Amino acid sequence: MKVLGNYVLIEAGTKEDKVGDFNLPEISQEKSQLGVVAGIGSDVKSLTTGDKVVFAKYAEYPVVIEGKGYSVVEERDVLVIL
Amino acid sequence: MKVLGNYVLIEAGTKEDKVGDFNLPEISQEKSQLGVVAGIGSDVKSLTTGDKVVFAKYAEYPVVIEGKGYSVVEERDVLVIL
Amino acid sequence: MKVLGNYVLIEAGTKEDKVGDFNLPEISQEKSQLGVVAGIGSDVKSLTTGDKVVFAKYAEYPVVIEGKGYSVVEERDVLVIL
Amino acid sequence: MKVLGNYVLIEAGTKEDKVGDFNLPEISQEKSQLGVVAGIGSDVKSLTTGDKVVFAKYAEYPVVIEGKGYSVVEERDVLVIL
Amino acid sequence: MKVLGNYVLIEAGTKEDKVGDFNLPEISQEKSQLGVVAGIGSDVKSLTTGDKVVFAKYAEYPVVIEGKGYSVVEERDVLVIL
Amino acid sequence: MKVLGNYVLIEAGTKEDKVGDFNLPEISQEKSQLGVVAGIGSDVKSLTTGDKVVFAKYAEYPVVIEGKGYSVVEERDVLVIL
Amino acid sequence: MKVLGNYVLIEAGTKEDKVGDFNLPEISQEKSQLGVVAGIGSDVKSLTTGDKVVFAKYAEYPVVIEGKGYSVVEERDVLVIL
Repeated sequence: MKVLGNYVLIEAGTKEDKVGDFNLPEISQEKSQLGVVAGIGSDVKSLTTGDKVVFAKYAEYPVVIEGKGYSVVEERDVLVIL
Repeated sequence: MKVLGNYVLIEAGTKEDKVGDFNLPEISQEKSQLGVVAGIGSDVKSLTTGDKVVFAKYAEYPVVIEGKGYSVVEERDVLVIL
Repeated sequence: MKVLGNYVLIEAGTKEDKVGDFNLPEISQEKSQLGVVAGIGSDVKSLTTGDKVVFAKYAEYPVVIEGKGYSVVEERDVLVIL
Repeated sequence: MKVLGNYVLIEAGTKEDKVGDFNLPEISQEKSQLGVVAGIGSDVKSLTTGDKVVFAKYAEYPVVIEGKGYSVVEERDVLVIL
Repeated sequence: MKVLGNYVLIEAGTKEDKVGDFNLPEISQEKSQLGVVAGIGSDVKSLTTGDKVVFAKYAEYPVVIEGKGYSVVEERDVLVIL
Repeated sequence: MKVLGNYVLIEAGTKEDKVGDFNLPEISQEKSQLGVVAGIGSDVKSLTTGDKVVFAKYAEYPVVIEGKGYSVVEERDVLVIL
Repeated sequence: MKVLGNYVLIEAGTKEDKVGDFNLPEISQEKSQLGVVAGIGSDVKSLTTGDKVVFAKYAEYPVVIEGKGYSVVEERDVLVIL
């Protein structure tokens, strides 16, 4: 599988997910989400596979691979590496 | 037939389509779709005919050639090659 | 007659039009249309008079010359040469 | 009188106007109009005074000089010289 | 007083105003207005104080100096010097 | 205190404020306001502390320092120095 | 933790917060907020960790780390360092 351009494939966490001491308040879960980077496009500069990230959800494309849920977002919509 | 500029002609799959272990959850089928690249414009850099792809649907133009359904989208709206 | 800039003058087909094996599904006729290029502006690079094309309709300007219907669109709104 | 920048001053025709064999269907007269160029700004490259043109109406500014009606539009909104 | 950037200070005429043979039809007075340039910002290239102009009203800022009404608009919103 | 980028901190006047012979008509007070520059960001070129200005209000951020009301706006939204 | 690109991580104050003599009027708390910078992306030029700031709230992403509330905003949305 090859992610294109400036897109990032993220294995998205669930509402209950928590990474270390990091979580998202109820109010923010409409706007952002926790996840792990599963693939990056060739134009992506600041992320690598395996990074735990917080990403903005407003422009995500959800897909399913082998039963697991993923989100595709642009690199600029990834806010923080945990 | 010649696809123009940065457009991509995609033979679009149906709701039931599945490419290997890859599919799209019900919720995302309003936003993205599976398909196979059938033609590319001269400005398209990252795709070739025959690529299986997930593409964003919001700006697609549907056409029919010899009874088969296709979607025309811009290259930037193709997210992942499977 | 001189088409300006990046505009294309297209003799637009009707709903029943069909070019070879190529046609447009009912649903897409709100978004795109078949036609034949009748004139191009000096900034148009990828089209010539006589090309059979599919073009996006959302920004067309309809005009009538000697009783025939035409659409004026920008080059970027022409998707495919048949 | 001096037209500024990329603006074009056009003596606009009426609904009944017709230039040679060229006219506008009823539906398009909400979107475009026939007229004659009466003045151009210094940044206008593709038009001269006296050109008979079809122009897009969505951003016109109507004015009256010595009792005649004119439209001021940007050069990019002029589609065709007849 | 110093007008800034690409702004123009215009002593705006009233509905009844007329400059020589030039006036504005009733319909266009919602979109444009006659006036005299009273000051220009340092980035303004095509206008000088005293120019009689037609300007687009959609983005004007009205102010009052010594009891007279003025409009502040950007240079690109001035259409014609009379 | 350090104002950032192209922002300007302005001690905003009240509705009754008047600077010399300069004031704002009732109608324009929804769109613009009188005030005195209290601080500028390092990218601001055309203003200095103490300038009496008219500024566009549509994008202001109001703050209070030591009981006085201020507005933070971008430099491009300052129209005139009095 | 690594903040990305031009994002800033801010430990956001509450409605009752006050930094020295600086506070925000009731009306502006819908538009801006007091806080302390807790992390910056590699493209951020004008801020460092520990800066007390006023930031525009319209595009913030709220997150929680070890029980404390933070806001992620772009650098251009930070208005003033106190």
